[in-house]
Amino acid sequence: MPRIVMKFGGTSVADLDRIRNVAQRVKREVDAGNQVAVVVSAMSGATNQLVAWVNALDDLHDAREYDAVVATGEQVTSGLLAIALQKIGVPARSWQGWQLPMRTDDAHGKARILEVDGAPMIASMESGQVAVVAGFQGLAPGDRIATLGRGGSDTSAVALAAAVKADRCDIYTDVDGIYTTDPRIVPAAKKLQKISYEEMLELASVGAKVLQIRSVELAMNERVRVQVLSSFQDIPGTLVVDEDEIVEKEVVSGIAYARDEAKITLRNVPDRPGVAATIFGKLAEENVNVDMIVQNISAEGTTDMTFTIGKTDLPRAQAALAEIKEQVGNSEVLVDPNVAKISVVGVGMRSHAGVANTMFKALAEKSINIQVISTSEIKVSVLISAEYTELAVRALHTAYGLDAH
Amino acid sequence: MPRIVMKFGGTSVADLDRIRNVAQRVKREVDAGNQVAVVVSAMSGATNQLVAWVNALDDLHDAREYDAVVATGEQVTSGLLAIALQKIGVPARSWQGWQLPMRTDDAHGKARILEVDGAPMIASMESGQVAVVAGFQGLAPGDRIATLGRGGSDTSAVALAAAVKADRCDIYTDVDGIYTTDPRIVPAAKKLQKISYEEMLELASVGAKVLQIRSVELAMNERVRVQVLSSFQDIPGTLVVDEDEIVEKEVVSGIAYARDEAKITLRNVPDRPGVAATIFGKLAEENVNVDMIVQNISAEGTTDMTFTIGKTDLPRAQAALAEIKEQVGNSEVLVDPNVAKISVVGVGMRSHAGVANTMFKALAEKSINIQVISTSEIKVSVLISAEYTELAVRALHTAYGLDAH
Repeated sequence: MPRIVMKFGGTSVADLDRIRNVAQRVKREVDAGNQVAVVVSAMSGATNQLVAWVNALDDLHDAREYDAVVATGEQVTSGLLAIALQKIGVPARSWQGWQLPMRTDDAHGKARILEVDGAPMIASMESGQVAVVAGFQGLAPGDRIATLGRGGSDTSAVALAAAVKADRCDIYTDVDGIYTTDPRIVPAAKKLQKISYEEMLELASVGAKVLQIRSVELAMNERVRVQVLSSFQDIPGTLVVDEDEIVEKEVVSGIAYARDEAKITLRNVPDRPGVAATIFGKLAEENVNVDMIVQNISAEGTTDMTFTIGKTDLPRAQAALAEIKEQVGNSEVLVDPNVAKISVVGVGMRSHAGVANTMFKALAEKSINIQVISTSEIKVSVLISAEYTELAVRALHTAYGLDAH
Repeated sequence: MPRIVMKFGGTSVADLDRIRNVAQRVKREVDAGNQVAVVVSAMSGATNQLVAWVNALDDLHDAREYDAVVATGEQVTSGLLAIALQKIGVPARSWQGWQLPMRTDDAHGKARILEVDGAPMIASMESGQVAVVAGFQGLAPGDRIATLGRGGSDTSAVALAAAVKADRCDIYTDVDGIYTTDPRIVPAAKKLQKISYEEMLELASVGAKVLQIRSVELAMNERVRVQVLSSFQDIPGTLVVDEDEIVEKEVVSGIAYARDEAKITLRNVPDRPGVAATIFGKLAEENVNVDMIVQNISAEGTTDMTFTIGKTDLPRAQAALAEIKEQVGNSEVLVDPNVAKISVVGVGMRSHAGVANTMFKALAEKSINIQVISTSEIKVSVLISAEYTELAVRALHTAYGLDAH
């Protein structure tokens, strides 16, 4: 009997009517002969309210207590959905993270799943009972409640799918699949039937926030077939699968953009060994993630060092750079938060030359200046001025032949 | 080092400011050199919202799922209060029912506490950490979440106080103690300094709803000294203690009233053996609690049988009586929901004659007709027409010399 995990996000369980809707969707899968586990998020808005309370009391709160408070959102939904399922004749029960248990490390507030014992769940599902699991939460050492960080319910669902050896993990969300780019910017964007884990990872990391990155990593490692689909429409979504399952590999599968980075330039950095280590060592110490880095060639013994960081890290980064200014010996620090990172992603890139060049040409034709470039095996990213974001995305979507006919 | 349990109800933790207030009160007890455990209810309104959701989905819901949903209210408060305490420098941590664990039976929705292991809590308190315990909840067999029923946090607090051998269990509430009667009816009502468990039980059972009855029973059985006091004013409350601790025993300690009963009279019941057993056996079968019962002497082979039940049980009782009408052979069933039960309570009654007579005389002077009488060792109750409630309470308060000077 096929076994599937279904995951519903906050907007899909926002009120009682939507919870009843979810129950009907689950019933359909049960009636079709599947063994089903369901992972639920908190009703939309619930988590924000809980987080706001915690932060109002103490913005430097104990993360273990934050977790005890915030995990209640998913607990409520799990119980309500179990009741809604029973009401329409589907045997069901709720499972909290500590009941499974879904064991995590002790990084409260952003814990990582260490281990899920699938056996009790499998036994329950094989007896014909739908398991309704509170997502986003687990059991940390010392029997404390842990949460997985924002979007963690996706990861809960994938971990559960791996633990119960599910045939598929369906992630129901408010979009109906993964598109070649953001349809709000490019109406001609096409829904992808399939996408590889690697591509999904690159897209997620550059701002296509449909799936939490860790859930994709986990799916890739555990070879869990993930489907992203709409909770409101009854149409097939996009399958996130192993590259081998994709017969026709596109050179470029999608165009992504991110506006959450800021650019920092250190002017007149002395061109001597160890300077880069000083700068990026200090930033790492302060927990500032650095993304793109470029260093121009040296002129008269100094150089300019440019890099990007998350916008939210900006105050921390500026404080850190001020501390090491004398040690580094740079003249000024230029900060530009008005930048966007545009990326083209595709596994077919590995065997095709000229992909980057198509990008540079398309941007040049629109007179868009490229500030920083970075590449990976299946991705080319550029940093541009934020005001050109939509123009650049549209130009690239057309240049790579992705527009729907 | 003295050890105390403090319990705060829903109105005392209704918002963040009140939670901060509670933290200050707890800090004061810690600063005074006490080891402290705190039991909290849900923020007022939270439980009602959760119950409403559950009932809207299915009014015949699975009680285990109801418990999973509803227990979140207390979980939220426990985490928030722990954070508020840490913020003002008081080491604290939250404990959920399953973490202690507070083991209960499997009567989900109204579970009874079976066992609390005090050892881990004592160790934690002795290390200087305030234990913030989510009230109202426990761990049922099968590792499911259980709730104790409305007002259950009082019982949680008393059970915890017994388990950690606390010197006192302080119940903070929106009144500042136990009064000789309802001060809204009798402005001259006096606050009692001390009251015995037995009196408190009688008062609670006839409508003075300050403490949950089960919490008083438990306190009596475990000899836990309970104090009822205000969370908003800083004045001593009322101690609920063993009778032996009360030196000056009042003949009558308080006057209570209840308007939640209905009177039923079965007319012309054949006066033969087994009839009462048929009637009350059937009602017991249908889970209808019968309170007062009177049977008039027989006239011409039939009698009238009058008794009272909880108003909410009325539809179920009427259906049950209709079913057995032929078997019993009564003529009609008269129902009167407009009745009130007035009770005078006092342990001194045991050694004083004439207490009931004072009551009957005082009511007669106000021309209040007594419909039913019932007595216990320390209580005399009468049923009267509901419209005389306030008049009767005031007359009795004066008649027993309880008015403040």
